[in-house]
Amino acid sequence: MTPDQLRALVRTIPDHPKPGIMFRDVTTLLLDPEGLAAAADALAATVTDKPDLIAAIDARGFIVGTALALRLGCGLLLVRKDGKLPGETIAEDYALEYGTDRLAMHVDACTPGARVLITDDLLATGGTALAAARLIRRAGGLVTGARFFIDLPDLGGGAKLRAEGIEPISLMDFAGD
Amino acid sequence: MTPDQLRALVRTIPDHPKPGIMFRDVTTLLLDPEGLAAAADALAATVTDKPDLIAAIDARGFIVGTALALRLGCGLLLVRKDGKLPGETIAEDYALEYGTDRLAMHVDACTPGARVLITDDLLATGGTALAAARLIRRAGGLVTGARFFIDLPDLGGGAKLRAEGIEPISLMDFAGD
Repeated sequence: MTPDQLRALVRTIPDHPKPGIMFRDVTTLLLDPEGLAAAADALAATVTDKPDLIAAIDARGFIVGTALALRLGCGLLLVRKDGKLPGETIAEDYALEYGTDRLAMHVDACTPGARVLITDDLLATGGTALAAARLIRRAGGLVTGARFFIDLPDLGGGAKLRAEGIEPISLMDFAGD
Repeated sequence: MTPDQLRALVRTIPDHPKPGIMFRDVTTLLLDPEGLAAAADALAATVTDKPDLIAAIDARGFIVGTALALRLGCGLLLVRKDGKLPGETIAEDYALEYGTDRLAMHVDACTPGARVLITDDLLATGGTALAAARLIRRAGGLVTGARFFIDLPDLGGGAKLRAEGIEPISLMDFAGD
């Protein structure tokens, strides 16, 4: 499957969630067996230095993270909305358009020195990926990069991640949104 | 990896979320590279008749669903908390201990006649799996069964699914909780 074929599987929903926003809907790519497998293969192929753990951000990041963890033979570390994990956690806030939200990680999930790759379905402002990076670093882990199915470069997340020493790679981008 | 080794990777947190409950925490299994791969392989091996789609229930079901979809070569259908999907949806309520919650599915995600296997990490009362089954059936899909990493048989979910013609299979169960 070519990059253009993969890109064509992402549905665009105009004016969602509000007028002027072109929402990129990855669920139509996931529904396609060849598309899902090709996306998993293509993203795994961008990882040349196998990490110990794949960090997956709640909730669609669990899909990308599981795909990479299985393709690469890594463990899967869940970064969840606060209040969803049963064990002892550490938490970090991140900014929303209005207000803040909070991500949490089991304090014992990432051992010091563990090499961790961050994953989510879509890179927008980078707020959740940076909160995940802070959690991993607080636990003593090393963030080796970040992987996404989709990048929205106009929202600046890539530049923010690079400023923190995290190289993001995505399968496709949608610019001009 | 033996079934007992896989089972030993699930952490038990006593008295969570309230006194008397033994919480079975699958995150420790996910963190183990061999455990995650073995769980994916073992669950995929229980599927003898390949479905068209794997339905994955928000949020930890996305992990089990992605693993099965990739191992079997199926598409992945997301069944999400209401309000999380960008396209036109249908929704079904299910009972919580106090009150109700609602699951939704894109109305065009499941085509009539599609054969769909339901997945989640844990089978407890079966409420969310049955709501997912109602969504799939309303769309004209055929539910071919349900797969879980963990069954808590004392909570009766398996019997409820069988009463609706859905055979559940789990990798392990924790009885007597």
